[in-house]
Amino acid sequence: MTRRTMEAIGRLRERFGDELSTADAVRAHHANGVTAHRTTAPDAVLFANTTEDVVDAVRICHEYRCPVVPFGTGTSTEGQISAEQGGLTIDLSGMNRILRVSGEDLDCTVQAGVTRKALNAWLRDTGLFFPVDPGADASIGGMASTRASGTNAVRYGTMREVVMSLSVVLADGQVIETGTRARKSSAGYDLTRLFVGAEGTLGVITEVTLRLAPIPQRIAAAVCAFPTVRAAVASVVAALQNGMPLARAELLDALQVKACNRYSKLDLAVSPTLFLEFHGTDRAVDEQVSLMTELTREFEGGEFRWATATEERTRLWQARHDIWWAALALRPGSQGVPTDICVPISQLPDVIARAQQDVAELGLVAPLCGHIGDGNFHLCVLVDPADRNEQARIAELSARLVSHAHAVGGTCTGEHGIGTGKMGYLANERGAGMMTLAALKRALDPRNIMNPGKILCLDTYQSYE
Amino acid sequence: MTRRTMEAIGRLRERFGDELSTADAVRAHHANGVTAHRTTAPDAVLFANTTEDVVDAVRICHEYRCPVVPFGTGTSTEGQISAEQGGLTIDLSGMNRILRVSGEDLDCTVQAGVTRKALNAWLRDTGLFFPVDPGADASIGGMASTRASGTNAVRYGTMREVVMSLSVVLADGQVIETGTRARKSSAGYDLTRLFVGAEGTLGVITEVTLRLAPIPQRIAAAVCAFPTVRAAVASVVAALQNGMPLARAELLDALQVKACNRYSKLDLAVSPTLFLEFHGTDRAVDEQVSLMTELTREFEGGEFRWATATEERTRLWQARHDIWWAALALRPGSQGVPTDICVPISQLPDVIARAQQDVAELGLVAPLCGHIGDGNFHLCVLVDPADRNEQARIAELSARLVSHAHAVGGTCTGEHGIGTGKMGYLANERGAGMMTLAALKRALDPRNIMNPGKILCLDTYQSYE
Repeated sequence: MTRRTMEAIGRLRERFGDELSTADAVRAHHANGVTAHRTTAPDAVLFANTTEDVVDAVRICHEYRCPVVPFGTGTSTEGQISAEQGGLTIDLSGMNRILRVSGEDLDCTVQAGVTRKALNAWLRDTGLFFPVDPGADASIGGMASTRASGTNAVRYGTMREVVMSLSVVLADGQVIETGTRARKSSAGYDLTRLFVGAEGTLGVITEVTLRLAPIPQRIAAAVCAFPTVRAAVASVVAALQNGMPLARAELLDALQVKACNRYSKLDLAVSPTLFLEFHGTDRAVDEQVSLMTELTREFEGGEFRWATATEERTRLWQARHDIWWAALALRPGSQGVPTDICVPISQLPDVIARAQQDVAELGLVAPLCGHIGDGNFHLCVLVDPADRNEQARIAELSARLVSHAHAVGGTCTGEHGIGTGKMGYLANERGAGMMTLAALKRALDPRNIMNPGKILCLDTYQSYE
Repeated sequence: MTRRTMEAIGRLRERFGDELSTADAVRAHHANGVTAHRTTAPDAVLFANTTEDVVDAVRICHEYRCPVVPFGTGTSTEGQISAEQGGLTIDLSGMNRILRVSGEDLDCTVQAGVTRKALNAWLRDTGLFFPVDPGADASIGGMASTRASGTNAVRYGTMREVVMSLSVVLADGQVIETGTRARKSSAGYDLTRLFVGAEGTLGVITEVTLRLAPIPQRIAAAVCAFPTVRAAVASVVAALQNGMPLARAELLDALQVKACNRYSKLDLAVSPTLFLEFHGTDRAVDEQVSLMTELTREFEGGEFRWATATEERTRLWQARHDIWWAALALRPGSQGVPTDICVPISQLPDVIARAQQDVAELGLVAPLCGHIGDGNFHLCVLVDPADRNEQARIAELSARLVSHAHAVGGTCTGEHGIGTGKMGYLANERGAGMMTLAALKRALDPRNIMNPGKILCLDTYQSYE
């Protein structure tokens, strides 16, 4: 711990008393997310309850140049919560109040620590729901910070689209509101979108205003097997070209299906498979289903297995959400390393074929699932934590995947973010634009205290001026 | 002209020859947009043909600290094209090539000078269209720069949603690509959204990658009269709450209907009126229409007047697009001053009622039209250019409107931008956030040469450091 951080913690202790913890278990817990990356514990953890708590904490940290790491639920995958330079982690899970819901305007304002499941539970009787679903029960502030999306972004958008405004505590403790409750605005630079996806490196998000969606009259879910990944993707491309408002279009490769069968006690054909969901009025869903049935047949898809009753649907999507655990169960004792490239959808079959070839060449085990409608897919690469050689091969796989993505105009991360894990890939992707990123970071956080060592290593870009 | 600008123009002349003009008529033309604001002509105009032209011009201007004003078609309304401090206007209308269209990916890349009508004409046979429609045949680069939207943003989004990536020439002449062709990405700060809406104050946009939409199987348009504005808005709110994917929902007040009847030879009932458009498959459109008929009846709407044939629909929407001219024709010789507030849709009836009361109190004539689904409406305030007193009353009206919008969580501009016209309103809206805007501007354009004097007056915010 640096002397300045020690002094900052002394001041924080005076201000916050027991809401500040330096206990080893608490510190370790806050570095212990779901990531496979090496993480570092903070020197202290503050359990914040109000925006004012965050303001006071950031002001003290700013004065002493003590690093500040925002923490929601610890479900980020790229090391975003690691306290790379020690300092203070601000745990926002206590800021879990839903501040306002407007049924007429289809929007709400929540504190950053509200989780997506808590929000949806609260909304249940309003006829509205919050549509962004990354699987994990992440906090809304965390989801905004990593620009999260998930299974139904193809229909409802990502956090980039649904966040209307943010309350942000800046590096010097100033609080700003980035937008308004208007559904659109041309009023100056888009501060909302600047902080969405900034992973806490430009400020701490304390409140979020969100667009909500009306709960559809009917939801129908189906599973459809295909002879090849290419055929499965082609049927989704055709649906999108037809303007079909697919709510979810998830691809599982044969290995992932096998894993799900075993883990979730399903009996699906072991073949590339689409999990589809249709939202709308009765008539609209009927029509979508009939068109999709036609399209899948055209591309050699099998019969639809339907799950219209809520319980069946829940079981199916629970299996989809559990694929991570299903994958890990393929090799007990293994950890999972998720990849996350996103490419133009026309390129997806080739990129997936090359990825599977890479996996085979490198002697790895890596079931695949994908948010096909967005061109985004994940491999869950299984790794023996003790096997250095395997870890090296996974690093090689990851690099190859990103290079395939960049070669076809794609991105190194569709929804997980950069964290500590993908800084090199981001530099390749953005090229000269990294200087612009560095200029923004330096402008808003000149002391480099906000989640330092994530997204970009500021020292690398000092040559800008 | 400053000495430095004179030197810059000398250097530009050497590099560009006849593509650079200092002719009075050319300079005056480039300051002569559709705005009612006072504008200033640049000292020279460059007709750019390539990104390299823009790079070379900006490099020279950067060296001599000569202002740079990007120009597309001159259709911005808030003085965005005025060369407030003289300098060089870069006319991008020659950069009008469509570089790439992908039917499978539903996207394209165009040079910034391509207009939306030219793009749609080119796309006609592809089954795709570019959905953002601000009325004027603006350039894609200009539309990105003002974060434009228009009549069907309620369904298809604004430029914020449809721009995937930009090529931008920065203040020092460096070229960056802000994103990729992936439909979503969590790769670092959202540079694309930072330049969308920046009105050329952070760089010159030279290429734009856009999402396209499939042309719907059927388009149906209808007109429906209501006894009150409140009833018309209520029926649209109900439709949105039902999850109906309305393609267009435009409100005209009684005065605007009267103006349209006269100008476009229509015979609509002189009453608050919705222009509606439904997109989808035959069955989907049928269903939307039947539900919307129910909803409008519930709120005392009259019979739908249909325009399903293309010519009828074109005539109707031509009338909608011509409302500006229809409004001006109410008082020959007048100019129009457009207002542009956007509020949460539940607040729209009250805000419109107050606006109409303000118009009456101030003795003005101002027909109203609105993009109801977004909560955005315009008054076209008629002004006699010679009447100073009337101009003062219009300024008062504008201030009142913005203050009503801010009081209910809205914005001073839904789609026209800030330019020179709304800098004070933006400062009120953003509050402490103006310091963040200034920090961004200073970080990316430390010499303040990119469209200076728009969005924010940098001198005002020097106290930030």
